[in-house]
Parts: sequence; C-alpha cells; structure tokens
Amino acid sequence: MAAISSLSLKTPTKIQSLTKTHYSIPLNLPFSCRSKSKRTGSIGSRTRIRCGLLIEPDGGKLVELFVEESQRELKREDALKLPKIKLTKIDLEWVHVLSEGWASPLKGFMREDEFLQTLHFNSIRLEDGSVVNMSVPIVLAIDDSQKNLIGGSTSVALVDDENNPTAILSDIEIYKHNKEERIARTWGTTAPGLPYVDEAITHSGDWLIGGDLKVIDPVKYNDGLDRFRLSPAELRDEFTRRNADAVFAFQLRNPVHNGHALLMTDTRRRLLEMGYKNPVLLLHPLGGYTKADDVPLHWRMKQHEKVLEDGVLDPETTVVSIFPSPMHYAGPTEVQWHAKARINAGANFYIVGRDPAGMSHPLEKRDLYDADHGKKVLSMAPGLERLNILPFRVAAYDKTKNAMAFFDPSRPQDFIFISGTKMRTLAKNKESPPDGFMCPGGWKVLVEYYDSLAAAENGRVAEPVAS
Amino acid sequence: MAAISSLSLKTPTKIQSLTKTHYSIPLNLPFSCRSKSKRTGSIGSRTRIRCGLLIEPDGGKLVELFVEESQRELKREDALKLPKIKLTKIDLEWVHVLSEGWASPLKGFMREDEFLQTLHFNSIRLEDGSVVNMSVPIVLAIDDSQKNLIGGSTSVALVDDENNPTAILSDIEIYKHNKEERIARTWGTTAPGLPYVDEAITHSGDWLIGGDLKVIDPVKYNDGLDRFRLSPAELRDEFTRRNADAVFAFQLRNPVHNGHALLMTDTRRRLLEMGYKNPVLLLHPLGGYTKADDVPLHWRMKQHEKVLEDGVLDPETTVVSIFPSPMHYAGPTEVQWHAKARINAGANFYIVGRDPAGMSHPLEKRDLYDADHGKKVLSMAPGLERLNILPFRVAAYDKTKNAMAFFDPSRPQDFIFISGTKMRTLAKNKESPPDGFMCPGGWKVLVEYYDSLAAAENGRVAEPVAS
Repeated sequence: MAAISSLSLKTPTKIQSLTKTHYSIPLNLPFSCRSKSKRTGSIGSRTRIRCGLLIEPDGGKLVELFVEESQRELKREDALKLPKIKLTKIDLEWVHVLSEGWASPLKGFMREDEFLQTLHFNSIRLEDGSVVNMSVPIVLAIDDSQKNLIGGSTSVALVDDENNPTAILSDIEIYKHNKEERIARTWGTTAPGLPYVDEAITHSGDWLIGGDLKVIDPVKYNDGLDRFRLSPAELRDEFTRRNADAVFAFQLRNPVHNGHALLMTDTRRRLLEMGYKNPVLLLHPLGGYTKADDVPLHWRMKQHEKVLEDGVLDPETTVVSIFPSPMHYAGPTEVQWHAKARINAGANFYIVGRDPAGMSHPLEKRDLYDADHGKKVLSMAPGLERLNILPFRVAAYDKTKNAMAFFDPSRPQDFIFISGTKMRTLAKNKESPPDGFMCPGGWKVLVEYYDSLAAAENGRVAEPVAS
Repeated sequence: MAAISSLSLKTPTKIQSLTKTHYSIPLNLPFSCRSKSKRTGSIGSRTRIRCGLLIEPDGGKLVELFVEESQRELKREDALKLPKIKLTKIDLEWVHVLSEGWASPLKGFMREDEFLQTLHFNSIRLEDGSVVNMSVPIVLAIDDSQKNLIGGSTSVALVDDENNPTAILSDIEIYKHNKEERIARTWGTTAPGLPYVDEAITHSGDWLIGGDLKVIDPVKYNDGLDRFRLSPAELRDEFTRRNADAVFAFQLRNPVHNGHALLMTDTRRRLLEMGYKNPVLLLHPLGGYTKADDVPLHWRMKQHEKVLEDGVLDPETTVVSIFPSPMHYAGPTEVQWHAKARINAGANFYIVGRDPAGMSHPLEKRDLYDADHGKKVLSMAPGLERLNILPFRVAAYDKTKNAMAFFDPSRPQDFIFISGTKMRTLAKNKESPPDGFMCPGGWKVLVEYYDSLAAAENGRVAEPVAS
C-alpha cells in the first residue's frame, strides 16, 4: 500500500517493515504528556493524564489495561494455571477496545451494575457522583459448561484461537445473560436479522462474566493495518504534537466521497471562524466487525488512501486512524458510543450525520431508526455534555457546478442525491458516477472491490492489491 | 364502605356525602405551604413550593396543571373551538397524573425530546442542567385522521367520552409513534401479550402529540373512591400537618397480608432508630389501569380497609391514598416511575420489593424480569439520588409462631412461603390460609371477590358491597 502523508504510525518500531514512507513520525512526544508507570507507581497499567489543550478523558484519566512489559512472562505463566475462556473474533475486538481505554473509565468487561446502567440509562455513575456515557454493553458471554469450569475461581484467562493467553480477567462476577432484554433495550427491536445479534449474541452463552481486565500482549491483527490502529493515548500524543486546539472526529464505515470531504473541509473552516487556531480532523474509519454487505476494512482503507493522495483533504490537519470497535448498527444508542470513545481519544467536536449507525429494518420496509433521532439523542445524552455536536449538513451533487455541494433548498432541481445503494450499483456495474462525485482513484478501488466480490466463488472477498 | 381512621379526605367539600366518618380532615392546612396563584402571579396553574421538612419535588416545585377556577368557563368555550381528541380511559388517567404534578416537572404529554430522553436515559435534563428521573413515556397517541383534523392548529381540546372538553393541549408537537421501539425500550421485550401494550399501544395511532396541558376540571371518577385520591399537594399538606419528618411510601396493587404489615411496622421502627421522630407511612395502592387478573381497585380498597380496621397498622402514622397512575408491568423501568412520583408527593423513603412491577413472561415459562433488577436499577437510577431505597425484607409464615415473620435462613424448615398464586387459589376455593397470614376481615373480602368473579356470567366483576 502506498503511503498516506497524513497518517501517523502506530509505533516507531514498525517503521522498518514499511517502504516508501514519508509519514510524520511522532518520535519526539512531549514527555509531560505521558506519565510513565514508574512515576505514577501504578503496577501493570499505564495511566495517562490530561495533555495540553485536549478534552479530558471520561472519568478524568485514560484507563489503559496492559500488563507492564516486564511482567508479561509472569502473567502468562499465571494465566496458564487459570480456567480458560476462548475468545471469539468480536470478543477480541472488545478486549482491544477496553485495553486501550476507548471505553474509559471501564476497567474490563462489564459487571452487572455497569451492564444494567448501560441498558437502562446509557450512562454510568462513578464513585464521585459524576456520570459518564456508556450506551453499548461491553460484555463477555460464557455458557453453562464454561461457568462450571470456572467454578469458584476468582480469575480466568482469556485465550485466543490457539489457546494462547491474551488477557486475565480478575475479581470476576458471573451473572445472567438475558439476551432478549439486552437486544430489546440496545436496538429498540427484537426482530430477527440484526447483524451483530446474529453474529455475537444469538448463539452466545446464557451468562455474562465481568471483571478487571489486564491484557498480556497488546492486540495485533497482523493484517498490514496495525500501524493505522492508534490508541487513544497515541492519538492524544499526535494531536498534542500538532498543537491542535480543537479535534473534530468523523466516524465512517463507508467509502469517502467528495460530499464527505466538503463537509470535513467546511467544518475546519467553521472552527477557524469560531476562533480556533489549529483544528485537526480525526478521520476515523471503524475497523471492527461490520455486516457482510459493508465494504471490508482493507478496501475502505485503500479507498481512503486514494482520496488522501488526491489532496482532497489537507494532510497537515488530518489524522487517519482505525477505530477498533465492532459495529452494532444500533442507531441512536450506538452513536453515543462512537462519540464517547472519541472523547477518550481527544476529540472535542463530533460530526454526526443523518441516521448514524442506522440500517434498514430487518423485516419491515423502512429504516430501523428515525433519521433524526441519532443527532437528537446524541445532543441530549448524559455524559456527553462536554462534547460539541456538529450536525452533518446535507451535501448532494450540484449539476451546475459538476461538484458535490451543500444542498440549496431554493434550487432543488440543480441537485442529484446519490445514495449508498446507487453508488454501489454504479460501482458493481463498472459505471462511473458524475464527475466530481468521488476522486477517480477512489472510485477505481470501489469498482475493483465489487469486481473481486463478483469473481469470488465462495463469496469471500479478496484483499485489495497494492497499486 | 366503613370508615378508615387513618384516611385523609380528598377535599373537605366531599365530606357531606359520607356517613360514619371519623377521618382526620386536613382543614387547617398551614398557609405557608400553599402558594396561591394570586401571590405567585402565575395564571391558570397552582404552583407549590417546598413545605417544611419534606423532600423537594422534582425540578424544585410541584407543577400542577389546572385552569384557575375563575377561568374555567372561558377555557371551556375556547376548547369548543379547537380540534378535538377523544381520550381513552387510560389517556384520562394520564391527564389526571399530569395535572396533579405526579410527573413534575412535566408540563403535559411528552414532546419528542422528552420522549427520547425517557426511552434512552430514563431521565430528563432540565434547562439548569439538573436531571430528573422519568422512565415511563407519558404520551398521547393520535391516528392519521386525527392528525389531519388538527392540521395547522397549535392547540387541541382533549375531550371525554361524551365530547366534553377535559383539557387543552397547547403549543403542540406531533411526532412519529414508533410502537416497536417504544415497547422494546420500555419493556425490554416485544413479546405479544404485555397487558398495557395490548390495552393502550397496539391499536393506538401512529403519531404522538405532546404539548402544554391545562386541565379545565380536575379529573373525578365518581366511583366512591375519589375521596381517597389525594394529590401530591394534598399529601404534602397532610404530612406537614402530621409533622412528619420522614415519609416512607409503600406502592401496592395486591391485597395486604400480615407480611406486608410486618414490613411496614418494621420500617417505621428502623426509621425511629435512625433518629427520625415521626416517620409517616404512605400506603399507596395503584388506582389506574391494571391487568384483568389483578384484584380490582374497589375490592383492594375494601380489603385494605378491613386490614386497617383490624389495627394492624397505626392510623396515627399511616396515610392511605390512591396513586392514580395506570400500570405498565415494566419491572425495573416502571419501578423508577413509581418511586419518582412518590418523591413529588413528599416521600423520601421508598420500599422496594422483589420483582417490583414484574409479571410472568407472556410467552416463556419464566419471570419477565430478574427479581433483583428492580431494586438494583432503582438504586442506581439518575434523578433518584435523593430518595432512600429500602429493600423489602422477605417475610414468610413462621409455623413456630403462627404468624408472618422475617424469614430466618438458619431454620428454613419453620417457614411456609405463600405465593400470590397460592393465596388466590385458597381464596377461590374458599379455603382459609394459616392463622395469622391475613386478618380474617381482609381474607373474607378476598373470598367474596373471587366468589363474585365465579358467579359473574359475563366475566364482569361485581362491586364490593358495604358490610
């Protein structure tokens, strides 16, 4: 994959494996922004405190849940003696999310008190009486036999596919997994066909296990994209290095077209008008589980890369990174999670679109959620009062300009709306969208993707090739 | 109906219609506790401020939504010119609830912002940033034809069965009624057979209408029980008159047995031990819609009366009144509403039982809610931090004492648990429960009720007769 000038690297140690890089590498992090565990005296976890001008993480500090490097071997040996729980791919994504502090101040998979507050209040009250947002249950399901295996143990080892211990969950609490109630309160429906439910809940166990998580080795996917997976701490460092005085996050799980680019450029302009000197964009594609008909992460990253190469977005003021969370498609409930996690990564502005995290109703011919509810719920959500919500302005193809532009209701006849479905149909048929809808390089990636999809005998999608 | 010495009257004007009363009538209300509209300058509503030692209402003041008596005729004439919405029986119960300020600071049926916050957060943020609990949607549904009828009008008249205007809803907002989402988020299930859903939602309109409510005439039922329907303001006056320094509320919708009585007596004892000088019990049966197999309000009130006559509870420190809300059977969601409404009536302690507002799952052989979730959710609920939650201690029949007693786990063999089902079966078969389970007069009422039920040809239950 060719280089993207605006991207930051995951860790400097990865550089050697890359070619043709002209990344700006955050080697010289301001020391004051990273409190080493030696200095804080905490054991087995790195705790970060407020950096410069950035918004504070939820709960006042970023909770990272890594075992100290020097303790890893010891912990691995400890883990081998514990009852084992095998993690699914999505479980592992949540371990990743938790370990890096996206869900701060959560210290592990939810115990029942946290689960109930999430389901009923979309927020959790902390010991000091303050409230943080938490709308999506981050839970680990086990079945009867696993529960029996755990017996009276107070800790368990979380192991990967090959039984290697990934993490330890300690001071555990096991409680009932009422799937119906969890689904109804999270999605506002129990209709069969919800992608995350089918994938991760329906066949999961009847118990949930919560506890304090410590990750032995940071989660890596070895898919060529780990270098894009910056943790909240790393993103905060990068924003500080760039002297950002505002960070605006754009969550996406679709190809970027020029309407998106217009919106992001316009947002920066508005922030400058508001008096900010250096607003930085966090372009933050979701990297965890997505439904089968979404464009896979690899192809999306390739498309984003082409868009950035085309210079549609300014590399100096854009950080592209992958958000490791799996996707729930839970509309107004999930958009809160998407926003809250970005606070922890240092974003104080959040761009929210029409029907965020929405999808079609699995059974009925309508959208599952009201298109305006995401924005409304987000703006009223407990624990998100500090976050500035920026509603998405509607962009459409302006025939008079041969370009994407903000829709002008005084001359609707000049605009064409190109829906996601329309875009996919064009790409599948190798047709071109109107000039100016998407940069040609980005469009080519999309066409290639659908081409590979059609060619794939077993429906499995090929990885994109470097070009 | 014979008199109950501990009951307060609804209004002194009703006394004339009663015989054999030896009620304590709150004729001499402390003037300082009632802010007349003349003094506050508010028009068309009575606003109450904090009384003595009682807990403050949600939002700081009790919001009553009555048209001033002098303005009623004028408003009635206004109403006749407005588009009309006919209220169902349950709608009217909500008008009653709203008008008396049980849902303070709500000023009428919910607009969409309030509805969404209720569904997602079980709480509403006020303009000053503070949060009040609100877990159950208080909404008014209309159908397409009613919506068309309203057209561009900004106010509507709410009319009763006979088209008499009951109230005016002004500054209205009409928004979509997504029934599936409302049901899923309120009940945590969409299984068919939820009583309130079948009764009030399934066949209701596809739109909700919110706005500011003004009630022209206070809602009366003319069923002989209106005198028991004290408003929050009247209850506060009564507690103040009795110099209560703590008020503990007991919500019920079932016959009272000696286990309940033990609990209530024991609660008072504990509050005295805590240093309160005069804790007063609000024995507060729910009076609105209940499901078909619950004992109807008339029979329950008759049963409560017998229990009180038997002297099981101390009339000096007990206020019996009817809570006008309809029942949702929404478990942990609804118990918050039950508690919040009682704050508005002056209660600062709330007794919560096992599985409050719970019922069997309509389809599966299990309880709909985990029996402990109600208590847990209540104790964590936003906006209820000021309320003291008193968990119900388990009482059972102690064979060694021939009386109801708190269950002693060290000698389980000495206790019999008499479930509601068991109690109903005994009463239906005209059998007696063990001595000391319920006072004989109260039991007799239950037997009579089930007798009348069996005898009723068309399934309609007879009213209890005075004895």
